[in-house]
Amino acid sequence: MDAAQPQFESIVGRYACRVEWGDCDPAGIIFYPTYFRWMDAATWAFMELAGYDAARMRAEHLAMPLVSARCDFIAPALQGNRCEVRSRIERFGGKSFALLHDIVLTDGTVLAKGGETRVWGRFAAGPGSQMKGEPIPEALKASLRAR
Amino acid sequence: MDAAQPQFESIVGRYACRVEWGDCDPAGIIFYPTYFRWMDAATWAFMELAGYDAARMRAEHLAMPLVSARCDFIAPALQGNRCEVRSRIERFGGKSFALLHDIVLTDGTVLAKGGETRVWGRFAAGPGSQMKGEPIPEALKASLRAR
Amino acid sequence: MDAAQPQFESIVGRYACRVEWGDCDPAGIIFYPTYFRWMDAATWAFMELAGYDAARMRAEHLAMPLVSARCDFIAPALQGNRCEVRSRIERFGGKSFALLHDIVLTDGTVLAKGGETRVWGRFAAGPGSQMKGEPIPEALKASLRAR
Amino acid sequence: MDAAQPQFESIVGRYACRVEWGDCDPAGIIFYPTYFRWMDAATWAFMELAGYDAARMRAEHLAMPLVSARCDFIAPALQGNRCEVRSRIERFGGKSFALLHDIVLTDGTVLAKGGETRVWGRFAAGPGSQMKGEPIPEALKASLRAR
Repeated sequence: MDAAQPQFESIVGRYACRVEWGDCDPAGIIFYPTYFRWMDAATWAFMELAGYDAARMRAEHLAMPLVSARCDFIAPALQGNRCEVRSRIERFGGKSFALLHDIVLTDGTVLAKGGETRVWGRFAAGPGSQMKGEPIPEALKASLRAR
Repeated sequence: MDAAQPQFESIVGRYACRVEWGDCDPAGIIFYPTYFRWMDAATWAFMELAGYDAARMRAEHLAMPLVSARCDFIAPALQGNRCEVRSRIERFGGKSFALLHDIVLTDGTVLAKGGETRVWGRFAAGPGSQMKGEPIPEALKASLRAR
Repeated sequence: MDAAQPQFESIVGRYACRVEWGDCDPAGIIFYPTYFRWMDAATWAFMELAGYDAARMRAEHLAMPLVSARCDFIAPALQGNRCEVRSRIERFGGKSFALLHDIVLTDGTVLAKGGETRVWGRFAAGPGSQMKGEPIPEALKASLRAR
Repeated sequence: MDAAQPQFESIVGRYACRVEWGDCDPAGIIFYPTYFRWMDAATWAFMELAGYDAARMRAEHLAMPLVSARCDFIAPALQGNRCEVRSRIERFGGKSFALLHDIVLTDGTVLAKGGETRVWGRFAAGPGSQMKGEPIPEALKASLRAR
């Protein structure tokens, strides 16, 4: 993905979640892969804002395989904490895109700041078959642009 | 736990959840341990209704270790499906209790029907130490009784 | 599934696993849905013994959806514990089958005893499509019979 | 953590794992947070090489909270794939350290390349209590140095 692409003025998606008992480890705080699980779910929820919900993605044999993911962990989260993943597009490439995810408590405390780079892909022959990247629809980009 | 204990007239807790991409397996439907993860979270949420939220449980060194769990899987769930776990007490023993969990789609379709038997326990010396069962508080039982 | 089916003299499969940090919860012991995750993996490994490994199941569009699952939790497991799931067929029906799974520490201590009932199913039109139960191959049954 | 610290000549730890049915998503490939779950487990296994196994970490109230984590996903993994996480120390700071994790198939194909930065920490008052960073023991560093 061409890092020289200009930053995109993105709307912000909000995915609500909560730290459950089983999301925590023996240190009594959130087990870190949970944040990546949330970021993935937040990305799917974010795409709904552009009209691409799970049912449509399934019907059109679309998926969003990962190129890379990262996260900085800023403050620990405890069982019962109510959180929100605030997602936005950082950059659109031709067939790939980068998202930024801030994970915050409902009081605004930032727990973690993550990012993902993904490909916009289509299964050649239905779910489970080979996937190929394809150009991100212009209408999708337009839907996610802040007005 | 004494199965001869009379059934308990319980209130019903409602725990909202959603089938995420990462909760599903290559068959394109929910991976079944997800239901048990939800039942566990639903039990913690249910106990909040009796004033025992995560912060209090933690402060008082309480936990609810499992004796057994089971689930019948009735209909498959797909990514994006919004669900609810409807939880109620089936029976209270002295130090143990049984819960029933119905997992339903928002349109009422029953996806799964599960149950858990748990002990009401306290860590002898703080989180992570040995846990011992203790009598379930009468006030807790009263809070969960349907009026 | 017809419970009147005679019990099946099954070979025993052994699936090695280990309790990881992220498999445990704030009580410092294994989070119970982990056992179901292991039982699922153990079932797939068990079917390999009959020649049905993941690649073949995928190529032939086969899967093993669940009818029910249950587990009794007998002793707590800690991070670092090396375990084994000992799996066997309890009973074969026409299109369904029941498995028993004992989860034991390497020293033989029984941690949990679970069971699953599954359907032998094939996707109508490739992975992710509708699945239909079909007769369990006699060769598969023969492979899992203790001699 | 001071990035100016010289790179550390590290031994390489090997953590064996396998892609299970429940580790995969509806695209039929590994769900990406699984890699982070493996990296976490691989780090704990790596520390065993220096004499810090789970039992000792627990007894001495030690843990290794995360500062950041990242991963590049290079090739997709399928159910049944046998893998290995090859872990090494990238750099030791005073109280923090960075690890590199290569995730490879048993035939050597690189699936993913990740990294974690962690703090060496001790619980002030037993598991679940506040954690404070403390100097990484010199003996631990020496044990992980390639000879």
